[in-house]
Amino acid sequence: MLKDEIRVIGIDDSPFKKFKRGQVLVVGTIFRGGKYFDGILSTKVSIDGNNATKKISEMINNCKFKPQLQCIFLNGIAVGGFNVIDVKELNKKTKLPVVVIIRKKPNIEKIKETLIKINKKNKIKLIEKAGSVIPVGEIYMQLTGISIEKAKEILKIVCTRSLIPEPIRIAHLIASGITDGQSRGKA
Amino acid sequence: MLKDEIRVIGIDDSPFKKFKRGQVLVVGTIFRGGKYFDGILSTKVSIDGNNATKKISEMINNCKFKPQLQCIFLNGIAVGGFNVIDVKELNKKTKLPVVVIIRKKPNIEKIKETLIKINKKNKIKLIEKAGSVIPVGEIYMQLTGISIEKAKEILKIVCTRSLIPEPIRIAHLIASGITDGQSRGKA
Repeated sequence: MLKDEIRVIGIDDSPFKKFKRGQVLVVGTIFRGGKYFDGILSTKVSIDGNNATKKISEMINNCKFKPQLQCIFLNGIAVGGFNVIDVKELNKKTKLPVVVIIRKKPNIEKIKETLIKINKKNKIKLIEKAGSVIPVGEIYMQLTGISIEKAKEILKIVCTRSLIPEPIRIAHLIASGITDGQSRGKA
Repeated sequence: MLKDEIRVIGIDDSPFKKFKRGQVLVVGTIFRGGKYFDGILSTKVSIDGNNATKKISEMINNCKFKPQLQCIFLNGIAVGGFNVIDVKELNKKTKLPVVVIIRKKPNIEKIKETLIKINKKNKIKLIEKAGSVIPVGEIYMQLTGISIEKAKEILKIVCTRSLIPEPIRIAHLIASGITDGQSRGKA
Protein backbone atom coordinates (compact mmCIF):
# COMPACT_ATOMS: atom_id res chain seq x y z
CA MET A 1 0.00 0.00 0.00
CA LEU A 2 1.18 3.47 -0.87
CA LYS A 3 1.01 6.28 1.61
CA ASP A 4 -1.65 8.93 1.01
CA GLU A 5 1.08 11.53 1.32
CA ILE A 6 3.35 10.10 -1.37
CA ARG A 7 5.52 12.94 -2.68
CA VAL A 8 5.30 13.48 -6.46
CA ILE A 9 6.22 16.16 -9.00
CA GLY A 10 4.05 17.27 -11.93
CA ILE A 11 5.61 19.16 -14.83
CA ASP A 12 4.15 21.45 -17.48
CA ASP A 13 5.39 24.27 -19.71
CA SER A 14 4.06 27.75 -20.42
CA PRO A 15 2.15 28.66 -23.56
CA PHE A 16 4.00 30.51 -26.30
CA LYS A 17 3.09 32.09 -29.59
CA LYS A 18 3.49 30.07 -32.76
CA PHE A 19 6.77 30.71 -34.59
CA LYS A 20 8.21 32.31 -31.49
CA ARG A 21 11.84 31.56 -30.78
CA GLY A 22 13.69 31.62 -27.49
CA GLN A 23 12.81 29.92 -24.25
CA VAL A 24 9.72 28.81 -22.39
CA LEU A 25 9.15 28.47 -18.69
CA VAL A 26 8.85 24.93 -17.35
CA VAL A 27 7.21 24.54 -13.93
CA GLY A 28 7.32 21.57 -11.59
CA THR A 29 4.96 21.48 -8.61
CA ILE A 30 5.60 19.15 -5.73
CA PHE A 31 2.65 17.64 -3.93
CA ARG A 32 2.19 15.38 -0.98
CA GLY A 33 -0.60 13.16 -2.27
CA GLY A 34 -3.19 15.07 -4.24
CA LYS A 35 -3.88 17.79 -1.71
CA TYR A 36 -0.89 19.35 -0.06
CA PHE A 37 1.07 21.77 -2.26
CA ASP A 38 4.62 21.49 -0.98
CA GLY A 39 6.75 23.59 -3.29
CA ILE A 40 7.60 24.57 -6.82
CA LEU A 41 10.58 24.35 -9.14
CA SER A 42 11.16 26.13 -12.40
CA THR A 43 13.56 26.14 -15.31
CA LYS A 44 13.65 27.28 -18.93
CA VAL A 45 14.00 25.23 -22.09
CA SER A 46 14.49 26.32 -25.66
CA ILE A 47 11.52 26.28 -28.00
CA ASP A 48 11.75 23.26 -30.34
CA GLY A 49 15.23 22.65 -28.89
CA ASN A 50 16.95 19.56 -27.49
CA ASN A 51 17.69 20.45 -23.87
CA ALA A 52 14.45 19.44 -22.08
CA THR A 53 15.77 16.13 -20.69
CA LYS A 54 18.92 17.78 -19.33
CA LYS A 55 17.15 20.83 -17.88
CA ILE A 56 14.34 18.87 -16.24
CA SER A 57 16.58 16.20 -14.73
CA GLU A 58 18.89 18.89 -13.32
CA MET A 59 15.91 20.80 -11.92
CA ILE A 60 14.74 17.65 -10.12
CA ASN A 61 18.13 16.36 -9.00
CA ASN A 62 19.16 19.72 -7.53
CA CYS A 63 16.02 20.34 -5.52
CA LYS A 64 15.68 19.98 -1.78
CA PHE A 65 12.65 17.70 -2.18
CA LYS A 66 14.61 15.08 -4.14
CA PRO A 67 15.12 12.57 -1.29
CA GLN A 68 11.35 12.34 -0.74
CA LEU A 69 10.22 12.29 -4.38
CA GLN A 70 8.74 9.03 -5.61
CA CYS A 71 7.34 9.72 -9.07
CA ILE A 72 7.55 12.21 -11.96
CA PHE A 73 4.39 13.14 -13.88
CA LEU A 74 4.82 14.76 -17.29
CA ASN A 75 2.02 16.45 -19.22
CA GLY A 76 2.89 14.85 -22.55
CA ILE A 77 6.43 14.02 -23.60
CA ALA A 78 7.41 17.39 -25.03
CA VAL A 79 7.82 20.90 -23.63
CA GLY A 80 8.41 24.12 -25.57
CA GLY A 81 6.86 22.73 -28.76
CA PHE A 82 9.05 19.89 -30.02
CA ASN A 83 11.65 19.84 -27.23
CA VAL A 84 10.90 16.15 -26.72
CA ILE A 85 11.86 14.58 -23.39
CA ASP A 86 13.85 11.35 -23.43
CA VAL A 87 11.84 9.62 -20.71
CA LYS A 88 14.24 6.69 -20.42
CA GLU A 89 17.12 9.09 -19.85
CA LEU A 90 15.07 11.16 -17.38
CA ASN A 91 14.29 7.97 -15.45
CA LYS A 92 17.98 6.95 -15.48
CA LYS A 93 19.28 10.35 -14.40
CA THR A 94 16.75 10.92 -11.61
CA LYS A 95 16.29 7.26 -10.60
CA LEU A 96 12.55 7.99 -10.45
CA PRO A 97 9.65 6.40 -12.30
CA VAL A 98 8.22 8.59 -15.06
CA VAL A 99 4.50 8.66 -15.86
CA VAL A 100 3.55 10.59 -19.01
CA ILE A 101 -0.04 11.76 -18.84
CA ILE A 102 -1.95 12.24 -22.09
CA ARG A 103 -5.42 13.76 -22.18
CA LYS A 104 -6.42 12.68 -25.67
CA LYS A 105 -5.21 9.60 -27.46
CA PRO A 106 -2.31 10.84 -29.58
CA ASN A 107 -2.07 10.20 -33.28
CA ILE A 108 1.53 8.96 -33.23
CA GLU A 109 1.66 8.54 -37.03
CA LYS A 110 0.60 12.15 -37.54
CA ILE A 111 3.21 13.38 -35.05
CA LYS A 112 5.89 11.39 -36.87
CA GLU A 113 4.81 12.85 -40.21
CA THR A 114 5.02 16.36 -38.76
CA LEU A 115 8.50 15.70 -37.34
CA ILE A 116 9.70 14.53 -40.75
CA LYS A 117 8.11 17.56 -42.40
CA ILE A 118 9.79 20.05 -40.04
CA ASN A 119 13.10 18.25 -40.36
CA LYS A 120 13.18 16.82 -36.82
CA LYS A 121 13.23 13.15 -37.77
CA ASN A 122 15.74 12.47 -34.98
CA LYS A 123 12.97 13.05 -32.40
CA ILE A 124 10.94 10.09 -33.65
CA LYS A 125 13.26 7.77 -31.70
CA LEU A 126 12.39 9.61 -28.47
CA ILE A 127 8.68 9.25 -29.12
CA GLU A 128 9.07 5.53 -29.76
CA LYS A 129 11.18 5.16 -26.59
CA ALA A 130 8.31 6.47 -24.45
CA GLY A 131 6.52 3.14 -24.79
CA SER A 132 2.94 2.05 -25.35
CA VAL A 133 0.03 4.37 -24.73
CA ILE A 134 -2.07 2.77 -21.99
CA PRO A 135 -5.67 3.84 -21.38
CA VAL A 136 -6.56 4.57 -17.75
CA GLY A 137 -10.12 5.79 -17.18
CA GLU A 138 -10.72 8.67 -19.59
CA ILE A 139 -7.05 9.52 -20.07
CA TYR A 140 -3.87 7.76 -21.24
CA MET A 141 -0.40 7.16 -19.84
CA GLN A 142 3.06 6.01 -20.88
CA LEU A 143 5.23 4.38 -18.22
CA THR A 144 8.93 4.07 -17.51
CA GLY A 145 10.31 2.36 -14.42
CA ILE A 146 6.91 1.58 -12.93
CA SER A 147 4.26 -1.11 -13.31
CA ILE A 148 0.76 -0.41 -14.61
CA GLU A 149 -0.71 -1.44 -11.25
CA LYS A 150 1.49 0.87 -9.22
CA ALA A 151 0.95 3.80 -11.60
CA LYS A 152 -2.81 3.35 -11.32
CA GLU A 153 -2.54 3.24 -7.53
CA ILE A 154 -0.61 6.54 -7.46
CA LEU A 155 -3.07 8.13 -9.92
CA LYS A 156 -5.93 7.32 -7.55
CA ILE A 157 -4.17 9.30 -4.82
CA VAL A 158 -3.10 12.33 -6.87
CA CYS A 159 -6.10 12.94 -9.18
CA THR A 160 -8.13 14.74 -6.53
CA ARG A 161 -9.75 17.57 -8.47
CA SER A 162 -9.89 16.51 -12.09
CA LEU A 163 -9.01 13.65 -14.41
CA ILE A 164 -5.32 14.51 -14.28
CA PRO A 165 -2.85 14.54 -11.39
CA GLU A 166 -3.24 17.64 -9.22
CA PRO A 167 0.48 18.62 -9.52
CA ILE A 168 0.12 18.74 -13.33
CA ARG A 169 -3.10 20.77 -13.14
CA ILE A 170 -1.42 23.31 -10.86
CA ALA A 171 1.87 23.39 -12.83
CA HIS A 172 -0.21 24.26 -15.88
CA LEU A 173 -2.05 27.08 -14.09
CA ILE A 174 1.21 28.51 -12.75
CA ALA A 175 3.12 28.34 -16.04
CA SER A 176 0.32 30.11 -17.93
CA GLY A 177 -0.44 32.58 -15.11
CA ILE A 178 3.17 33.71 -14.85
CA THR A 179 3.67 34.01 -18.60
CA ASP A 180 0.34 35.58 -19.57
CA GLY A 181 -0.56 37.39 -16.34
CA GLN A 182 -3.62 35.19 -15.93
CA SER A 183 -3.94 31.41 -15.83
CA ARG A 184 -6.24 29.79 -18.32
CA GLY A 185 -7.50 26.56 -19.77
CA LYS A 186 -6.89 23.03 -18.71
CA ALA A 187 -3.59 21.17 -18.43
CA MET B 1 -22.68 32.41 7.41
CA LEU B 2 -20.01 32.40 4.74
CA LYS B 3 -19.76 29.69 2.16
CA ASP B 4 -16.86 27.25 2.57
CA GLU B 5 -16.01 27.91 -1.05
CA ILE B 6 -15.71 31.68 -0.73
CA ARG B 7 -13.41 32.91 -3.52
CA VAL B 8 -10.38 34.90 -2.30
CA ILE B 9 -7.03 36.09 -3.66
CA GLY B 10 -3.71 36.03 -1.78
CA ILE B 11 -0.84 38.20 -2.96
CA ASP B 12 2.93 37.99 -2.40
CA ASP B 13 6.06 39.16 -4.18
CA SER B 14 9.25 37.37 -5.19
CA PRO B 15 12.51 37.70 -3.27
CA PHE B 16 15.19 39.98 -4.69
CA LYS B 17 18.78 40.80 -3.84
CA LYS B 18 19.46 43.82 -1.67
CA PHE B 19 20.34 46.97 -3.62
CA LYS B 20 18.94 45.41 -6.77
CA ARG B 21 17.03 47.72 -9.06
CA GLY B 22 14.35 46.89 -11.60
CA GLN B 23 11.18 44.92 -11.13
CA VAL B 24 9.92 42.07 -9.00
CA LEU B 25 7.29 39.50 -9.77
CA VAL B 26 4.02 39.80 -7.85
CA VAL B 27 1.82 36.69 -7.75
CA GLY B 28 -1.85 36.42 -6.83
CA THR B 29 -3.36 32.98 -6.26
CA ILE B 30 -7.08 32.51 -6.32
CA PHE B 31 -8.62 29.94 -4.02
CA ARG B 32 -12.09 28.65 -3.37
CA GLY B 33 -11.99 28.40 0.41
CA GLY B 34 -8.69 27.12 1.73
CA LYS B 35 -8.40 24.03 -0.42
CA TYR B 36 -9.24 24.46 -4.06
CA PHE B 37 -6.56 26.25 -6.11
CA ASP B 38 -8.51 27.99 -8.85
CA GLY B 39 -6.02 30.08 -10.78
CA ILE B 40 -3.13 32.49 -10.68
CA LEU B 41 -2.44 36.06 -11.72
CA SER B 42 0.87 37.83 -12.02
CA THR B 43 2.28 41.28 -12.60
CA LYS B 44 5.52 43.16 -12.04
CA VAL B 45 6.21 46.16 -9.82
CA SER B 46 9.28 48.33 -9.53
CA ILE B 47 11.59 47.77 -6.57
CA ASP B 48 11.09 50.54 -3.99
CA GLY B 49 8.80 52.25 -6.53
CA ASN B 50 5.29 53.72 -6.31
CA ASN B 51 3.24 51.60 -8.71
CA ALA B 52 2.13 48.68 -6.51
CA THR B 53 -1.42 49.94 -5.88
CA LYS B 54 -2.01 50.62 -9.56
CA LYS B 55 -0.48 47.36 -10.79
CA ILE B 56 -2.24 45.16 -8.24
CA SER B 57 -5.67 46.75 -8.68
CA GLU B 58 -5.37 46.42 -12.47
CA MET B 59 -4.29 42.80 -12.13
CA ILE B 60 -7.37 42.06 -10.02
CA ASN B 61 -9.87 44.16 -11.98
CA ASN B 62 -8.84 42.67 -15.32
CA CYS B 63 -9.03 39.04 -14.29
CA LYS B 64 -11.75 36.60 -15.23
CA PHE B 65 -12.28 35.64 -11.56
CA LYS B 66 -13.21 39.21 -10.55
CA PRO B 67 -17.02 38.74 -10.40
CA GLN B 68 -16.60 35.90 -7.87
CA LEU B 69 -13.84 37.42 -5.71
CA GLN B 70 -14.85 38.41 -2.20
CA CYS B 71 -11.65 39.35 -0.38
CA ILE B 72 -8.03 40.37 -1.00
CA PHE B 73 -5.28 39.06 1.30
CA LEU B 74 -1.95 40.87 1.24
CA ASN B 75 1.24 39.52 2.83
CA GLY B 76 2.22 42.80 4.49
CA ILE B 77 1.47 46.20 2.96
CA ALA B 78 4.51 46.48 0.70
CA VAL B 79 5.86 44.55 -2.30
CA GLY B 80 9.25 44.94 -3.98
CA GLY B 81 10.84 46.41 -0.88
CA PHE B 82 9.23 49.78 -0.14
CA ASN B 83 6.65 49.81 -2.93
CA VAL B 84 3.96 50.39 -0.30
CA ILE B 85 0.36 49.56 -1.22
CA ASP B 86 -2.32 52.16 -0.55
CA VAL B 87 -4.87 49.74 0.92
CA LYS B 88 -7.66 52.32 0.98
CA GLU B 89 -7.14 53.01 -2.70
CA LEU B 90 -6.91 49.28 -3.50
CA ASN B 91 -10.22 48.76 -1.69
CA LYS B 92 -11.81 51.66 -3.57
CA LYS B 93 -10.55 50.60 -7.00
CA THR B 94 -11.45 46.91 -6.66
CA LYS B 95 -14.51 47.35 -4.42
CA LEU B 96 -13.20 44.42 -2.37
CA PRO B 97 -12.27 44.22 1.31
CA VAL B 98 -8.53 44.13 1.95
CA VAL B 99 -7.01 42.07 4.76
CA VAL B 100 -3.30 42.66 5.36
CA ILE B 101 -1.71 39.65 7.05
CA ILE B 102 1.33 40.21 9.25
CA ARG B 103 3.29 37.32 10.70
CA LYS B 104 5.19 39.22 13.38
CA LYS B 105 4.01 42.34 15.15
CA PRO B 106 5.59 45.16 13.15
CA ASN B 107 7.63 47.90 14.77
CA ILE B 108 5.86 50.80 13.06
CA GLU B 109 8.14 53.42 14.63
CA LYS B 110 11.23 51.65 13.31
CA ILE B 111 9.70 51.40 9.82
CA LYS B 112 8.91 55.13 9.87
CA GLU B 113 12.48 55.94 10.94
CA THR B 114 13.82 53.83 8.06
CA LEU B 115 11.53 55.56 5.58
CA ILE B 116 12.77 58.97 6.72
CA LYS B 117 16.36 57.76 6.54
CA ILE B 118 16.01 56.49 2.96
CA ASN B 119 14.16 59.63 1.92
CA LYS B 120 10.75 58.03 1.47
CA LYS B 121 8.89 60.04 4.08
CA ASN B 122 5.87 60.25 1.73
CA LYS B 123 5.22 56.53 2.32
CA ILE B 124 4.55 57.06 6.03
CA LYS B 125 1.05 58.28 5.17
CA LEU B 126 0.31 54.97 3.41
CA ILE B 127 1.43 52.99 6.43
CA GLU B 128 -0.76 55.07 8.73
CA LYS B 129 -3.71 54.66 6.34
CA ALA B 130 -3.55 50.86 6.68
CA GLY B 131 -5.14 51.14 10.13
CA SER B 132 -4.61 49.45 13.46
CA VAL B 133 -2.73 46.20 13.79
CA ILE B 134 -5.17 43.65 15.22
CA PRO B 135 -3.96 40.40 16.79
CA VAL B 136 -5.74 37.26 15.62
CA GLY B 137 -4.40 34.02 17.08
CA GLU B 138 -0.64 34.01 16.60
CA ILE B 139 -0.64 36.51 13.71
CA TYR B 140 -1.84 40.06 13.06
CA MET B 141 -4.06 41.77 10.53
CA GLN B 142 -5.03 45.23 9.26
CA LEU B 143 -8.50 45.66 7.81
CA THR B 144 -10.11 47.86 5.19
CA GLY B 145 -13.75 47.53 4.16
CA ILE B 146 -14.46 44.57 6.43
CA SER B 147 -15.37 44.00 10.09
CA ILE B 148 -13.11 42.17 12.52
CA GLU B 149 -15.76 39.46 12.95
CA LYS B 150 -16.14 38.83 9.23
CA ALA B 151 -12.37 38.83 8.65
CA LYS B 152 -11.93 36.26 11.42
CA GLU B 153 -14.66 34.12 9.90
CA ILE B 154 -12.94 34.14 6.48
CA LEU B 155 -9.56 33.39 8.07
CA LYS B 156 -11.01 30.27 9.67
CA ILE B 157 -12.00 29.02 6.22
CA VAL B 158 -8.78 29.87 4.35
CA CYS B 159 -6.03 29.05 6.89
CA THR B 160 -6.11 25.32 6.18
CA ARG B 161 -2.45 24.37 6.24
CA SER B 162 -0.64 26.93 8.34
CA LEU B 163 -1.24 30.07 10.38
CA ILE B 164 -1.66 32.16 7.26
CA PRO B 165 -4.24 32.03 4.46
CA GLU B 166 -3.51 29.24 2.00
CA PRO B 167 -3.56 31.58 -1.06
CA ILE B 168 -0.78 33.69 0.53
CA ARG B 169 1.29 30.60 1.41
CA ILE B 170 1.03 29.36 -2.18
CA ALA B 171 1.62 32.80 -3.77
CA HIS B 172 4.83 32.96 -1.74
CA LEU B 173 5.98 29.51 -2.90
CA ILE B 174 5.22 30.34 -6.53
CA ALA B 175 6.90 33.77 -6.52
CA SER B 176 10.10 32.38 -5.00
CA GLY B 177 10.04 29.17 -7.06
CA ILE B 178 9.72 31.03 -10.35
CA THR B 179 12.38 33.59 -9.49
CA ASP B 180 14.96 31.34 -7.82
CA GLY B 181 14.20 28.03 -9.55
CA GLN B 182 13.17 26.50 -6.21
CA SER B 183 10.59 27.65 -3.67
CA ARG B 184 11.79 28.26 -0.16
CA GLY B 185 10.88 29.52 3.28
CA LYS B 186 7.59 30.64 4.64
CA ALA B 187 5.31 33.41 3.43
